[in-house]
Amino acid sequence: MSTYKVAVVGGSGYTGAELVRLLIEHPEFELIAATSTSENGLALAEKYPALMGHTDLKYSLVSELPLDELDTVFLAVPHTAAFDIAPQLLQYGISVIDLSADFRLKDVAVYEKWYNVTHGAPELLAKAVYGLPELYRHQLVDQANRRATTGEPALVACPGCYPTASALAAAPVLAADAMMPGRPVIINAVSGASGMGRSASDASLFTNVNEDARSYNVGTHRHTPEIEQTFSIEAQQQIPVSFTPILIPMTRGIVSNVAINMLPGLRSDVIDVIYQTAYSDEPFVKLLPYGKMPQSSSVSTTNQAHIGYFLDEQTNILVASCAIDNLGKGAATQAIQCANIVFGLSETIGLDRIGVVV
Amino acid sequence: MSTYKVAVVGGSGYTGAELVRLLIEHPEFELIAATSTSENGLALAEKYPALMGHTDLKYSLVSELPLDELDTVFLAVPHTAAFDIAPQLLQYGISVIDLSADFRLKDVAVYEKWYNVTHGAPELLAKAVYGLPELYRHQLVDQANRRATTGEPALVACPGCYPTASALAAAPVLAADAMMPGRPVIINAVSGASGMGRSASDASLFTNVNEDARSYNVGTHRHTPEIEQTFSIEAQQQIPVSFTPILIPMTRGIVSNVAINMLPGLRSDVIDVIYQTAYSDEPFVKLLPYGKMPQSSSVSTTNQAHIGYFLDEQTNILVASCAIDNLGKGAATQAIQCANIVFGLSETIGLDRIGVVV
Amino acid sequence: MSTYKVAVVGGSGYTGAELVRLLIEHPEFELIAATSTSENGLALAEKYPALMGHTDLKYSLVSELPLDELDTVFLAVPHTAAFDIAPQLLQYGISVIDLSADFRLKDVAVYEKWYNVTHGAPELLAKAVYGLPELYRHQLVDQANRRATTGEPALVACPGCYPTASALAAAPVLAADAMMPGRPVIINAVSGASGMGRSASDASLFTNVNEDARSYNVGTHRHTPEIEQTFSIEAQQQIPVSFTPILIPMTRGIVSNVAINMLPGLRSDVIDVIYQTAYSDEPFVKLLPYGKMPQSSSVSTTNQAHIGYFLDEQTNILVASCAIDNLGKGAATQAIQCANIVFGLSETIGLDRIGVVV
Amino acid sequence: MSTYKVAVVGGSGYTGAELVRLLIEHPEFELIAATSTSENGLALAEKYPALMGHTDLKYSLVSELPLDELDTVFLAVPHTAAFDIAPQLLQYGISVIDLSADFRLKDVAVYEKWYNVTHGAPELLAKAVYGLPELYRHQLVDQANRRATTGEPALVACPGCYPTASALAAAPVLAADAMMPGRPVIINAVSGASGMGRSASDASLFTNVNEDARSYNVGTHRHTPEIEQTFSIEAQQQIPVSFTPILIPMTRGIVSNVAINMLPGLRSDVIDVIYQTAYSDEPFVKLLPYGKMPQSSSVSTTNQAHIGYFLDEQTNILVASCAIDNLGKGAATQAIQCANIVFGLSETIGLDRIGVVV
Repeated sequence: MSTYKVAVVGGSGYTGAELVRLLIEHPEFELIAATSTSENGLALAEKYPALMGHTDLKYSLVSELPLDELDTVFLAVPHTAAFDIAPQLLQYGISVIDLSADFRLKDVAVYEKWYNVTHGAPELLAKAVYGLPELYRHQLVDQANRRATTGEPALVACPGCYPTASALAAAPVLAADAMMPGRPVIINAVSGASGMGRSASDASLFTNVNEDARSYNVGTHRHTPEIEQTFSIEAQQQIPVSFTPILIPMTRGIVSNVAINMLPGLRSDVIDVIYQTAYSDEPFVKLLPYGKMPQSSSVSTTNQAHIGYFLDEQTNILVASCAIDNLGKGAATQAIQCANIVFGLSETIGLDRIGVVV
Repeated sequence: MSTYKVAVVGGSGYTGAELVRLLIEHPEFELIAATSTSENGLALAEKYPALMGHTDLKYSLVSELPLDELDTVFLAVPHTAAFDIAPQLLQYGISVIDLSADFRLKDVAVYEKWYNVTHGAPELLAKAVYGLPELYRHQLVDQANRRATTGEPALVACPGCYPTASALAAAPVLAADAMMPGRPVIINAVSGASGMGRSASDASLFTNVNEDARSYNVGTHRHTPEIEQTFSIEAQQQIPVSFTPILIPMTRGIVSNVAINMLPGLRSDVIDVIYQTAYSDEPFVKLLPYGKMPQSSSVSTTNQAHIGYFLDEQTNILVASCAIDNLGKGAATQAIQCANIVFGLSETIGLDRIGVVV
Repeated sequence: MSTYKVAVVGGSGYTGAELVRLLIEHPEFELIAATSTSENGLALAEKYPALMGHTDLKYSLVSELPLDELDTVFLAVPHTAAFDIAPQLLQYGISVIDLSADFRLKDVAVYEKWYNVTHGAPELLAKAVYGLPELYRHQLVDQANRRATTGEPALVACPGCYPTASALAAAPVLAADAMMPGRPVIINAVSGASGMGRSASDASLFTNVNEDARSYNVGTHRHTPEIEQTFSIEAQQQIPVSFTPILIPMTRGIVSNVAINMLPGLRSDVIDVIYQTAYSDEPFVKLLPYGKMPQSSSVSTTNQAHIGYFLDEQTNILVASCAIDNLGKGAATQAIQCANIVFGLSETIGLDRIGVVV
Repeated sequence: MSTYKVAVVGGSGYTGAELVRLLIEHPEFELIAATSTSENGLALAEKYPALMGHTDLKYSLVSELPLDELDTVFLAVPHTAAFDIAPQLLQYGISVIDLSADFRLKDVAVYEKWYNVTHGAPELLAKAVYGLPELYRHQLVDQANRRATTGEPALVACPGCYPTASALAAAPVLAADAMMPGRPVIINAVSGASGMGRSASDASLFTNVNEDARSYNVGTHRHTPEIEQTFSIEAQQQIPVSFTPILIPMTRGIVSNVAINMLPGLRSDVIDVIYQTAYSDEPFVKLLPYGKMPQSSSVSTTNQAHIGYFLDEQTNILVASCAIDNLGKGAATQAIQCANIVFGLSETIGLDRIGVVV
C-alpha cells in the first residue's frame, strides 16, 4: 500500500500526463486526483489511451481536491497559476511540488520584469527550494527534515527544462573557478515540440513543425534569468548568459550546448576530473567519454541526464552538452525526484526504469 | 533473486535490444548473455546508451553461451538462423523462444515456397507452438506443464508483427462463423521503420523514409501465409488473404486494418458482443467503443493491443483495426509473455508498465 | 504578360497557399487577389515566408474582390462556403474553380445526407463539371468551348484528394468490365497531416501526429460517396465502397490502395495493357513496372500521379496503388490543370516542373 | 536551345540528384551526362522516380564523359575525388564547378591537417575561386571575363553547407569592425540528415535519426577551418571559431546561429543598417524584421538565405541566424548560381522558383 496520497493539478497537459503515468506506477505515492478545467469529468484513459487498464480516475476540478487526504500536490500549471493554489495547499499542511515558473526566481523584480506580471505570493520565495537535486540536494533534505520533525509542508520550485539541462552541463566547470572572468556564456539548445505544451496553436501544428527548424525568443526567453541565477550561484559571480532555443521536429528531448570561455592552459584530463568529481555519485547523471556527445533519444522517458564535453585548445572554449527528456528530467521525473527526497524516500524510487532503447 | 537464467541471441538488433531492456527489468528472468556477431565484445550500453547504468554486459558469441546455466534462450534472428541453434539448445534442455520465422508455418512446403529455402529442422515443427497467447494459450500451458513435470524444454514460434495485429483484429469474427464464405479477406497494415531492422540499406535511410509512404511486397510479403494459416484455423475453413503492408515515417508501431465481408443483416451490437466475449479477460487487449479506431502511439513500448471495429451496413464490410507496437506485442513483449506462460509465471509479469503517454 | 486575371478565395490555408505559389509562377494567369478572413491585411509573404521576394500581395476580404477585372476565381474553402460565392461570381461572368465539396456530388440527397446540411445552390449541379481531367477531359473541354464561344463562365468542381487517388488507381480496371459483380471495393489510403488543414486542433498538433498512425472516420468519411459516384460511372454499375483513411506522420502525400475482386483467370499482362491503354497519353500519370508500388515522395509538390498494381492469382484481388500529393494533384495543381483546360491553354502549363527529388 | 552542355559527376547522391533536377530545368544549361560508379547503367528516373518523364538519361562512368562536347562539369564528389578529375577537365578547357572540399581552403597545410591526406593538386589552389557570390562575386566575374576573352576554363570551389550559412549570417558585422577583438565566435548549427549523404550507415537510419538530436564532431568538424578562413578574411583579422553541428530529424535544412561578442554600446538600428547595406541588392538573401528568426522550411528547395539577428544589450552578444537549404544554397543551387556567373548568364536564371510553402 502506498504511503502518501498525491494529486496532479493540470493533469491533462503533457507534463501533467507524464506525472500521472509516473505516479500511478510509483510504489510509495498513490494518485487520488488529477484536475483539468478543460477536461473535467473525462476519464484520464480516454484523453490518454495509453492509460487504459491502468486507472479509472476522471479529471476533476481544483475545487474538488480532497484536501483532508492529500499529502502532496504537483502543480503542472502555467506561470501565475500557482500564486493562489500554492499558499492554500501549504496552509492545509500539504506539500507543494510546483512545476510552474512562479517560485523559481529568487528576486521578485527579475520575475516581474521577465514575466511582465506582479508576483502574487512573494512571501513564499524565501521558503521555496529550487528543485535541482544534483546541485541543491541539501536544501531539499532540509525541507524533508523539517517536514518530518515539525510537519511543515515543503515547497519545491521545479526548474524549467532548458535551465535543468544547461545547469547540469555547466555547473561543474562554473564551480571550478576556471572560466575567463567577464565573458558571457553562450547557450544553444534544441527542443522537441512537446515543450510548447498541449494548447493548439499555429506554431505547434504538425505541418508547421515537421521538416523545419527555427530559433525563437532569442534574447527574450524566460528561462534566461533562471539560467543566469543558477550559473551565478555556482560560479559565485554574476554570469551573463546568451540563450538561443531552437524548436526542432521531434516530440520529446532537449540537447543544451553550453559554450564557456575557459582560462588558457587547461587540459582535457582536468576537465574529466572536474566532471567525474561532480557527478560520480549521482544516480541520474551519466558522463560520456571525453569528446563524445549525448543523444536525446538515449534519455527519452527517463530522469537521466547524459553529458559530454570538449575543450577546444585553440579557442579555449569548452562545449558542454547535456541531453535530457524535457518532459522527464526537465519536468515530471525531476518533480518526482524532488518529492522522493522531501518525503524521505529513496531518491530513485519510481524513477529507475530503463528508457526507450529504440 | 531471479528464478530463471536467460540469454538473447541476436541482441544488437532492434528486437534483440528490446528483449534486453525487458529482461533486465524482469523480476523472474536474469539476463546473463546477449550475443551479436557484429558487435562481439562491445558493451550493450555503448551500443544502446539508454542502457547505461543498467547493465555491464558485453555482447558475446553464440559459441560462448553458458549452456549449463541457461534455462531459456530468446532467438532474435533472421529466418534460417534458428535451424541450427534451436535443436542444440533443446538438446541441452534449454527452452527456446524463437522470434524468427522458422517454426511458424506448420506446412514445410508453404515455408519452403515463401522463404525459398529448404527447411533445416522440419522435425521440430510438430513440437513448436505458435506463440499468440490470446488464441493458443492452452498450447503454451501444455508446454509449461510438460516442462514442469518431465523437464522437456519448450519451443515457442513467436508470430510476426503483422500476423499478430491482423489475427487479434480478425479472430473473434472469423471464429463466429458470420463471414460470407469464399470471400478473400483484405488487409492493409501500416508499419514504422523499425520493422526493417537495424541493417543499413538505402530503403531504411532517414532521408528515404521521412515524408514518404509506400506499399511494398504487395502479394509477396512473407507474413501472408502466416496470416492465412491463423485465419484458416480460426475460421475452420481456408481463408484467402490479400495483404498490403505500407511503410510510413515513424519508428515503432503497426496499425492493421482487416476488411471482412460479413453475412448480411448483422448488427453492430452483435459485433460488440463477439469482441467483448473474446477479449474481456485478456490483460493485453483493449477494445475501443464501437466505431472508434485505435492509435499506434497508445500502445508504444507495451504488450497491449488496442482494437476498434466498424461494420458498414451498406457493403457488409467489417473493418477491424488493431494497433500494436511492432517491437512490443509484435515481437519482444509477446515473446516474454510466452516465456512467462511456459515457465509457469504470471502472464503479465514484467509486462505491466504503462506505455509512453506523449 | 499574363492573359487572365485570377484570385484565390481562402488563400491562407494550405491549399490556398499552394494555389498562390502556383499562380504567381503561372505564365498565363496573374494572381491579383487572395482573400482570408482571419489574415485580412497581412502580407502573404509574412504568413508564408517562402513567398518573400515573390509577391507583395496582402490578404483581402471576399467583399473586396475586383470583380470587374477577374477572369476566374479559385475557391479554396470548406464545404457550404461556395454556395453563396459561386453563383455571384458566375453572374459576373467569372469562371469558378471550386475546391470545396459543394458541387462534386451530382445527387443532392447524397450530399445532404453525408454533409448533413441543406444544399444551398442545387441549380448549379447540372452545370458543374467534376474536375478530374484524366477521366472527364471532354466535359472540361466542352466548358472551354462554351466559354470561348458564348462567354459563359465555367464551373469546375475539383475532386477531393482521396477520390482523385482512388479513381486514378481503379478507373481503368473498373471500365474494363473485368471485376466480379457485386463485390465491394476495399480502399485503404494513408494521408499526410496537411489534409487536416491549417486550423489548429488537438488532433493536428505535432505531438499528436508524430510517431502515430490511426485510421479515422471509417465508414463515415465524406469522400466515400464521391468515390462511389466515380467508380459507379466508370464501371457502369453501382459499386459499393469500403473506405478507410489513415493519418500518418508526414506533411504531404497520399497513397491509396484499392483492392478489387477481379474475375478469375486474368493475367498480369492483360492488366498491364489495360493501364497502358488508359494512361499512355496522360502527361500527369506514370505507370510503374508491374508489381512495383509508388512512393508518395516521388510526386511531392507536383501534379503527378504514380500508379502501381498487382494481381494476386490466388485471391483474384487486384491491388492498385496510386500516390499523389494531396495538396497537388489532390487539390491545387489539379485545379490549375482544370483551369488550363477551361481557358484553352496547354494543359500542362505551369505544372511541368520537376518535384522534390530528395 | 540551351547554350552550354554540362555534366554532373557523382549524380546519384543527394547533391548530385539536386543538381540533376536543376540542370534539367535550366534554360541555358543542357545536362548531357550524369555519372555514378555504383549506379552505372541505371536510368536516373529509376533511382529518383520524381524524374520520371523529365529525363531519359542513364548513369554513366566518368571515363565515358563526352569531353569534346562539355562546357562545364559539376563535381558532386567526396573530398580527394576532385584531385584527379578537376585538372583533366581544365586541361580540356572544361570549366569545373567543384562541390567537394578540395579547393576551398587556401592553405595546403590547413587542408592536410583537417582532412588528414596529402593535397593532390595544390597548384590549382591559386586559381580556384571560393564560390560564395554574395561575398566574392567579383572574383567569379573575373573568371567569367577570363573565360569569355581567353577561353580559360573556370574553377570554382563551392563552399560547404555550414560555412555558407555561417558566413552569410556573420559577414556584415565581421566586416563592420564592431566586434570585441580576440573573442572567439561561437557557432551552433542544426542540420537535416541529408547532410550525411546517401551512403547507408547506422547513424543515418531513420530509426536512429527520428526522435533524436545530437551534437557531433564538436571541435573537429572539417567545416571549422573553412568558416575561420572566411571569417578572418571578412574581419581582416584572425577569428577563432568554436563550431558545434547538431543533427536533427529532418531531411533538408540548416539553421546556423552565430554568436559574436560585439563592442559595447551598439544599437539595434545600427545593426539593421549594417545588414541592409550588405544585402539590399542580393537576390538570394532576405532579411527578417529585427529580432525575428528564420525558419529552415521557408527556404527549402531554393537558393534563398533568410537571416535574422538580435543584439542582447546586457551581454553585447549578437546572435545572427541564417536558414538555408543544405542541398540548395548549401550545395546545388549555389553551384548553379556560380556557374551562371561564370558563364555570363543572369545570376538568378534557373534559380528563381518559389520554394515549398507548406
